[in-house]
Amino acid sequence: MDVVGYAVHGEREKLAPLKFARRDVGAEDVAIAIEWSGVCHSDIHTGRSEWGDVMFPCVPGHEIVGRVTAVGSDVTKFSVGQQVGVGVYVDSCRECEQCRSGMSNYCAKGMIGTYNNPDREGDGYTLGGYANGIVVDHGYVVNVPESLDPAGAAPLLCAGITLYSPLKEWGAGPGKKVGIVGLGGLGHMGVKFAKALGAHVTVFSHSASKKDDALSMGADDFIVTTDETVFETHQKQFDLLINTVSAPIDLNLYLELLGLDGTLVMVGLAPEPYPIKAFSMLAQRRRIAGSMIGPVAQLQEMLDFAAEHNIVSDVEVIKADYINEAWDRVVESDVRYRFVIDASTFATT
Amino acid sequence: MDVVGYAVHGEREKLAPLKFARRDVGAEDVAIAIEWSGVCHSDIHTGRSEWGDVMFPCVPGHEIVGRVTAVGSDVTKFSVGQQVGVGVYVDSCRECEQCRSGMSNYCAKGMIGTYNNPDREGDGYTLGGYANGIVVDHGYVVNVPESLDPAGAAPLLCAGITLYSPLKEWGAGPGKKVGIVGLGGLGHMGVKFAKALGAHVTVFSHSASKKDDALSMGADDFIVTTDETVFETHQKQFDLLINTVSAPIDLNLYLELLGLDGTLVMVGLAPEPYPIKAFSMLAQRRRIAGSMIGPVAQLQEMLDFAAEHNIVSDVEVIKADYINEAWDRVVESDVRYRFVIDASTFATT
Repeated sequence: MDVVGYAVHGEREKLAPLKFARRDVGAEDVAIAIEWSGVCHSDIHTGRSEWGDVMFPCVPGHEIVGRVTAVGSDVTKFSVGQQVGVGVYVDSCRECEQCRSGMSNYCAKGMIGTYNNPDREGDGYTLGGYANGIVVDHGYVVNVPESLDPAGAAPLLCAGITLYSPLKEWGAGPGKKVGIVGLGGLGHMGVKFAKALGAHVTVFSHSASKKDDALSMGADDFIVTTDETVFETHQKQFDLLINTVSAPIDLNLYLELLGLDGTLVMVGLAPEPYPIKAFSMLAQRRRIAGSMIGPVAQLQEMLDFAAEHNIVSDVEVIKADYINEAWDRVVESDVRYRFVIDASTFATT
Repeated sequence: MDVVGYAVHGEREKLAPLKFARRDVGAEDVAIAIEWSGVCHSDIHTGRSEWGDVMFPCVPGHEIVGRVTAVGSDVTKFSVGQQVGVGVYVDSCRECEQCRSGMSNYCAKGMIGTYNNPDREGDGYTLGGYANGIVVDHGYVVNVPESLDPAGAAPLLCAGITLYSPLKEWGAGPGKKVGIVGLGGLGHMGVKFAKALGAHVTVFSHSASKKDDALSMGADDFIVTTDETVFETHQKQFDLLINTVSAPIDLNLYLELLGLDGTLVMVGLAPEPYPIKAFSMLAQRRRIAGSMIGPVAQLQEMLDFAAEHNIVSDVEVIKADYINEAWDRVVESDVRYRFVIDASTFATT
């Protein structure tokens, strides 16, 4: 299948159009006409070679919503015309304990990312969602309920699951005090899901200007962190904190906010190590945990939950030729709260 | 009650004898003739002003085993002659959520340590177990089963519970691979308890010379960490690691050893923050947790479990006038594996 998309063609180059072919639709594959493609900060880290080696041309994008155009002979779960989504990974080893227990996002051999990863056959590498079509194994495709705004649904495939998964794992719900640290692409999904799950939700942000947004998304409280006395005032009050800030912040301050057995979840990938004080952990038997997207079954659960509670991302829809500017704005945190590419505009570039 | 013990009388001074009076036995108190008193590394940190302010004279010691000599009018749980123990704390606020839920070691106002803490009345401060007698509220006293060697039982009151509590909390048991990092006063208790709980136990140590000890204590495996390739060889294999090393070590190396949802528990109190890489946490959804001794009820549970499985600490019994030398040897890790003072020798100093 011939498609057109946007790629980084070489180190330090800007994104530019690329015509390329997707693989033929195999027996277990689903061909998808991409309609909406979200812009994730990790696209930028990868495309700008900030996270290591890049295979050029690199087509980023792992927040994909579109419609099925063809299915392989062994595919029964999806049919032509159905609205579907693809997230951060498109394959895994399927043999390790993690894969067999349905946790393929933690595949022991490493999940196969939607872009810039050697593919399973080993004879090529994956090209992502900044394009108007993709072919993906049906085991890594999910249904996107028709009731969801499809552009707003695209960021659910990465930003959404990144927050939903730890909120579920660490028991966000009625009677729990949850803090979302940072109100950006990730954080705003955390506010919406935590609220819908029934938790009391507090946003921690250094931008007082985001207060109205936070409250309108469902936050019960908004704490400006430029005044560090707030960490004293609110100590031992929270059950769960999710840090969505990828810049270095002092996690010891946030640990003090957790009560007995409280957990601080890290979902951002700051390059520098965080200095963690032992005493911040021992007091109140606190925990720090990592969390990395979620398995395919949970991706589906999250989309169904989102449909039930009418949750989508707040998005700014852009055309394909705006991507380079959009990347710059993401780096400057100048987006409320996620860019989504109208994939129909790839064909005209 | 007049007692004699050993105290640090001023900053940078060595320990020297001290005669002092314990409070009168109140309605809820238990008077104890101390027979065995363990030497914990935190005694040294405190006594040498390494952990902040010290109230002089400072009588350290929070691994106490002795016999009841008197009980207050409201005490029904203990009787004269009974063998009992006192651990790291002797009181707490009794009103906070943590105290009310039986987790008084995490008292929101701070537990009242057995020594060097302002006492509950606020008109004095606590003096610890390096003495031949003590008076403690019965709610913070435990029964020490007669079948246990009493000198070897003393370190259970701190070192023992420090390891037993996280092993229980994070599910050490049959089918679980547990690693104990460091084989000292804490670590050797971890090996014994983890083994008795049914887990597969691996000791990580930089001292190859401790291998025989580790295996004789019940370890299934012993890994020398001076060769860093072991962190590659054993990656993603462990369910639970307990770091007992209070010197700075690279926890990121150990995190790589954890499989899906594995937990690294910190029980040592290194003064420097640990640099933790986000990616080490996100991969395999790993967790780091603190743990600080255990509540009184669990202290009793641990002693009963120890009696059932014949677990005590490996101890070197010393006389009171050897304490200063013992402290130096603890700092040099020159003890296998815990010093215990024969409290009958305080009276003759």
